[in-house]
Amino acid sequence: MGPHPAVAAIRLAVRRVLHDILSAHTQPPTGEQPLVLVACSGGADSMALASALAFEAPKLGIRAGGITVDHGLQPGSDSRAEDVVLRLTALGLRPVESVAVHVGRTGGPEAAARDARYAALDAAAERHGAAGVLLGHTRDDQAETVLLGLARGSGIRSLSGMAAVSGAAGRYRRPFLQLDRQTARKACLVQHLPVWDDPHNTDPAYTRSRLRHEGLPALEKALGKGVVEALARTAQLSRDDADALDTWAQQAAASVRDTAGLLECAKLYALPPAVRRRILRRAAIEAGAPAGALFARHIEEVDRLITGWRGQGEINLPGKVVAQRQGGRLVIRQG
Amino acid sequence: MGPHPAVAAIRLAVRRVLHDILSAHTQPPTGEQPLVLVACSGGADSMALASALAFEAPKLGIRAGGITVDHGLQPGSDSRAEDVVLRLTALGLRPVESVAVHVGRTGGPEAAARDARYAALDAAAERHGAAGVLLGHTRDDQAETVLLGLARGSGIRSLSGMAAVSGAAGRYRRPFLQLDRQTARKACLVQHLPVWDDPHNTDPAYTRSRLRHEGLPALEKALGKGVVEALARTAQLSRDDADALDTWAQQAAASVRDTAGLLECAKLYALPPAVRRRILRRAAIEAGAPAGALFARHIEEVDRLITGWRGQGEINLPGKVVAQRQGGRLVIRQG
Repeated sequence: MGPHPAVAAIRLAVRRVLHDILSAHTQPPTGEQPLVLVACSGGADSMALASALAFEAPKLGIRAGGITVDHGLQPGSDSRAEDVVLRLTALGLRPVESVAVHVGRTGGPEAAARDARYAALDAAAERHGAAGVLLGHTRDDQAETVLLGLARGSGIRSLSGMAAVSGAAGRYRRPFLQLDRQTARKACLVQHLPVWDDPHNTDPAYTRSRLRHEGLPALEKALGKGVVEALARTAQLSRDDADALDTWAQQAAASVRDTAGLLECAKLYALPPAVRRRILRRAAIEAGAPAGALFARHIEEVDRLITGWRGQGEINLPGKVVAQRQGGRLVIRQG
Repeated sequence: MGPHPAVAAIRLAVRRVLHDILSAHTQPPTGEQPLVLVACSGGADSMALASALAFEAPKLGIRAGGITVDHGLQPGSDSRAEDVVLRLTALGLRPVESVAVHVGRTGGPEAAARDARYAALDAAAERHGAAGVLLGHTRDDQAETVLLGLARGSGIRSLSGMAAVSGAAGRYRRPFLQLDRQTARKACLVQHLPVWDDPHNTDPAYTRSRLRHEGLPALEKALGKGVVEALARTAQLSRDDADALDTWAQQAAASVRDTAGLLECAKLYALPPAVRRRILRRAAIEAGAPAGALFARHIEEVDRLITGWRGQGEINLPGKVVAQRQGGRLVIRQG
């Protein structure tokens, strides 16, 4: 008799990613086996991921290790992190370590915690020379991320959610991105793995938590059960589309400049709006405008220097960047 | 003292569109004034639209008329339609008529009603030689349409909502697409215009109604008040992006065919996935696959003949269309 379907599903997902990591991996001269780490909070998703890694890695000649990050945001978080270390060790992972981080305030509580976490994971991966770091994000997390992006209203790049492969040299891998949360939870249950439910996940002070417990269920009630899957598929399609348009914009950007490197309005005008606005956005960022402060309405205003020219003056952009039209050329520079 | 801000807002929106219609309009040799019709259900959005059209059109030398469609779906719908005719006439519109339609069943009740409605509006526009037909869709309707598209999970084209200009020769115009429903309602209130609330709009049997009264409010509660605006902006950005990628795919489609007109796998492989999949989709539709039955998963399977070739057999697509790889060429034809 084979394993429970949920366990089979999580193992298959991890096996595929491990094969992928192996095929990209260069064997070091020492002949040492490659190491893959799992980032584990002790929650159901990442405990399921850790169990599948522990099972699959040895069969492929891969060493499996684990990292848990202590964000220090709740009393007793350090002892909980030690607990996760014991559980990961019990699964047979080596090395296993807990890393304490200091969470700042930049960008709000969720963004600050995420920044601190990835910095710690990056450092751990470097320290151990890991060939990959597995993250337990599920299809449900992806759906939530798409809705968060949708709320920004800043275009298809923000609808593209999390990538299956990301980070420096594709370090981070998300094997469960096509798998639902329920499967991960079930896999923990049937394997008798204790899991820890982060109180942040149900705290209505957090946007993601409100989305998970109120927003998405209401949307499913209105639109039907396939919403999570549809959102995850939207992420993938949007990512591919955004990549293609970025490529186009990058190629076109060279062809619309004159010999002095200035943008020629007539050539910009001939491009599709989607491509032209990407070129304008990139030019503003290159001139010093902070990407995070540059909104669609800024780019639209600059675009009107091309498409609705009636002698407008300078357009002020974030980062003291100024855009103006001069003799058929668009000049974007820091003022 | 000027008009109430809500009335000023609806009039400005209509004035802009009328200018647009005039600039695209060719004066007939008879010198007759152009006619613009408003499609009016008697609800707040379209009654506000009718009032603004009645006010603005004469100042621009435009004749303003109105059409109401009797879908015959509720008892007494015919007398209600007559009532709308009286209200539009009282606003000073001429001609005004009520058109009774038969709603079929194709595509579900909402799609069938929409098809019947547009067929009737098209016919009325032709009959009266109208230069444009105004539709009362607001930013809130647009947000709902984006969410309905999101639920399909079929990519950015379905996120692009309703166009500001659509139909044969750009006949249909949606002046209120940037205006919220509350403004239209307020404009009716302060102008003492009676409005009719369609019971379908609050009937939870309809997906759009559930979305309006439960899904969107829950999403706003989770994500903040700007959700409707963000969704409407997403529609516009997605539409521009989808247009640009369609253009690219159309241009690239010619360059990836051999002298016999067959698709060359090596050339397809070199394209970005987003462009390649659009070419494959278009080729499948040209071979006879019905667009509505062709899902992302079908195209992905055909795409694997290019990107993951390991000697697969024929791929069956809707409409008895078959895709197969033969000697470095991709052949898509009706079987």
